[in-house]
Amino acid sequence: MMQSDTPRLLQSLSGKTLDRPPIWFMRQAGRFLPEYRALRAQSPDFMAFCKTPSMAAEVTLQPLRRFAFDAAIVFADILLIPEALGQKVWFEAGEGPRLGELPSNESLADQIEASTSRLSYVGETLDLVRGQLEPGRALIGFAGGPWTVATYMLEGRSSDRSAPRSLAYSEPERIDGLIAVLVESTARYLAMQAAAGAQALKIFESWAEQLPEPLFDRLVTQPHAAIIKRLRELGVDLPVIGFPRGAGALVDVYAAKAGSDAVALDVQASAEQGRRIQKLKPIQGALDPLLLRAGGVELERRIDEMLQAWGDGPYIFNLGHGILPDTPVEHVQRAVDRVTGHKG
Amino acid sequence: MMQSDTPRLLQSLSGKTLDRPPIWFMRQAGRFLPEYRALRAQSPDFMAFCKTPSMAAEVTLQPLRRFAFDAAIVFADILLIPEALGQKVWFEAGEGPRLGELPSNESLADQIEASTSRLSYVGETLDLVRGQLEPGRALIGFAGGPWTVATYMLEGRSSDRSAPRSLAYSEPERIDGLIAVLVESTARYLAMQAAAGAQALKIFESWAEQLPEPLFDRLVTQPHAAIIKRLRELGVDLPVIGFPRGAGALVDVYAAKAGSDAVALDVQASAEQGRRIQKLKPIQGALDPLLLRAGGVELERRIDEMLQAWGDGPYIFNLGHGILPDTPVEHVQRAVDRVTGHKG
Repeated sequence: MMQSDTPRLLQSLSGKTLDRPPIWFMRQAGRFLPEYRALRAQSPDFMAFCKTPSMAAEVTLQPLRRFAFDAAIVFADILLIPEALGQKVWFEAGEGPRLGELPSNESLADQIEASTSRLSYVGETLDLVRGQLEPGRALIGFAGGPWTVATYMLEGRSSDRSAPRSLAYSEPERIDGLIAVLVESTARYLAMQAAAGAQALKIFESWAEQLPEPLFDRLVTQPHAAIIKRLRELGVDLPVIGFPRGAGALVDVYAAKAGSDAVALDVQASAEQGRRIQKLKPIQGALDPLLLRAGGVELERRIDEMLQAWGDGPYIFNLGHGILPDTPVEHVQRAVDRVTGHKG
Repeated sequence: MMQSDTPRLLQSLSGKTLDRPPIWFMRQAGRFLPEYRALRAQSPDFMAFCKTPSMAAEVTLQPLRRFAFDAAIVFADILLIPEALGQKVWFEAGEGPRLGELPSNESLADQIEASTSRLSYVGETLDLVRGQLEPGRALIGFAGGPWTVATYMLEGRSSDRSAPRSLAYSEPERIDGLIAVLVESTARYLAMQAAAGAQALKIFESWAEQLPEPLFDRLVTQPHAAIIKRLRELGVDLPVIGFPRGAGALVDVYAAKAGSDAVALDVQASAEQGRRIQKLKPIQGALDPLLLRAGGVELERRIDEMLQAWGDGPYIFNLGHGILPDTPVEHVQRAVDRVTGHKG
């Protein structure tokens, strides 16, 4: 039996089934909170905001002051790595990320070692948050999945990913080389976050969708397995949550082969698929952010349904995607109350 | 044993495992063919083209003259139903469909009976094709899935479907009412196609993605089951292929509950999921159109892999999505040769 102050999230990640699941929400530090918007207004440049540990730590903690979340996730962005590797990254207001010219794989590889020190501001943020976090609440570090980050690096912006998928067929060496650079830089970046105080790590593969099984294996499952293997070599034994968003039935394959300690599910995971994966490892997910925004009795009904479907196994309550900016704060409160008030 | 001139497609749809699977491709009548582009140039208005049976029949047959496809699929569009129900539909060059103001559910319901006769040009196309099709090749009729068609009707164009999904939460009666109109009009439309000579029917639910299980059940599985039940009431006993594109692990739920005779898979179906579904019914799919366009040895390797994964059960070879317009004709030829030359 673990001590009662072992964070609930870490108990779940170790495979325990708890009286009620831990809860945290993707993008819980975000625009739906007025206090977040107020602080961001002081620093409209998103990249500069991420690089200011005092501000990033403050927004990381904001949702934990309001809600009984069981974990904080460091405020950062999946595109910090490409910038640290030497590709320019900026955000156009209302349009999302833009990336400059993509350096060659060789130039990127030359920057791997330096990239980790360039990202030390994320470590400083984690350190600041750890100093203010109650012992019962866990601190999560994260990085983007190599394939997702590669799609942004190749396209220079958000896209439908069909061009990068085509390149995976037509220029396999180039794509595999880029993924290899990202595997190594991501492992080192996550190891730095572990050293700075993260207690669990998450790999966000936001664009794992529409990949046939062989491409999914090559671009998602194997790179995640390589990151996790590298983390262990670097002496990091923290639990890793893998999130292959949009992977559909391939999430089963991922759960069996990627080597993550837990698997995060997106909104379309079936109850049955979740139970199938729980036989292998803990799951996290997967409330629809559109339903959280809509609220109403359907929201509570769905939460109860999810607790019933998955609460008898190792389970972390979360959304299937990030909170939408126009989500009423009261809906988040109601969802957290519903989950934390639940006794299995 | 069926007679040897029973179309291979129909043998597969009846549950038989054949020496090699039948093959046809989604969008096989389409822009990748020069003879299609030549005929379309004579009638740039897409809706007018669909409504001209001689032209629609000609492009339906074009791919069967070039390739050893085992089936023709009538040239039509999933947005013919909204137009027949009284919502204006047109196509902006290079931008896709545009729809006018959405009539009330009551006005739409009033048009159901008339809509089927307004769509009689599709029946004339089928009749023309049947007269020219060899007996060993099957003729497929189709319609869009109610949810997919509803998203276009609600949004007035192609969209990310998040607004219609939100409406499914916030205005359930309105959405369910629209789906109910589409269920009835789609069943009648498919029955008309059966009467005109179609030998199999397909329901294209192109936007079945990102729906949580309860919404998927309500918006996809149950409406498809209702269409199929209604078809049987109308005396139509043709096999129905259901295609819940993007449904991920929920395709298993669909296969168990929607009542279709076969299930079409998209590119991300896993080998294991396909075999799981084959225990219930025949499957169709799921070559990546991006790989067909890319070609190379990887294309033939992947075809062999799919034949090996699924060829021991009832299986129809197809793409996981439509042929891309810039796909080289030779790649299609090579894929068809690979599949039709295959002996299991």
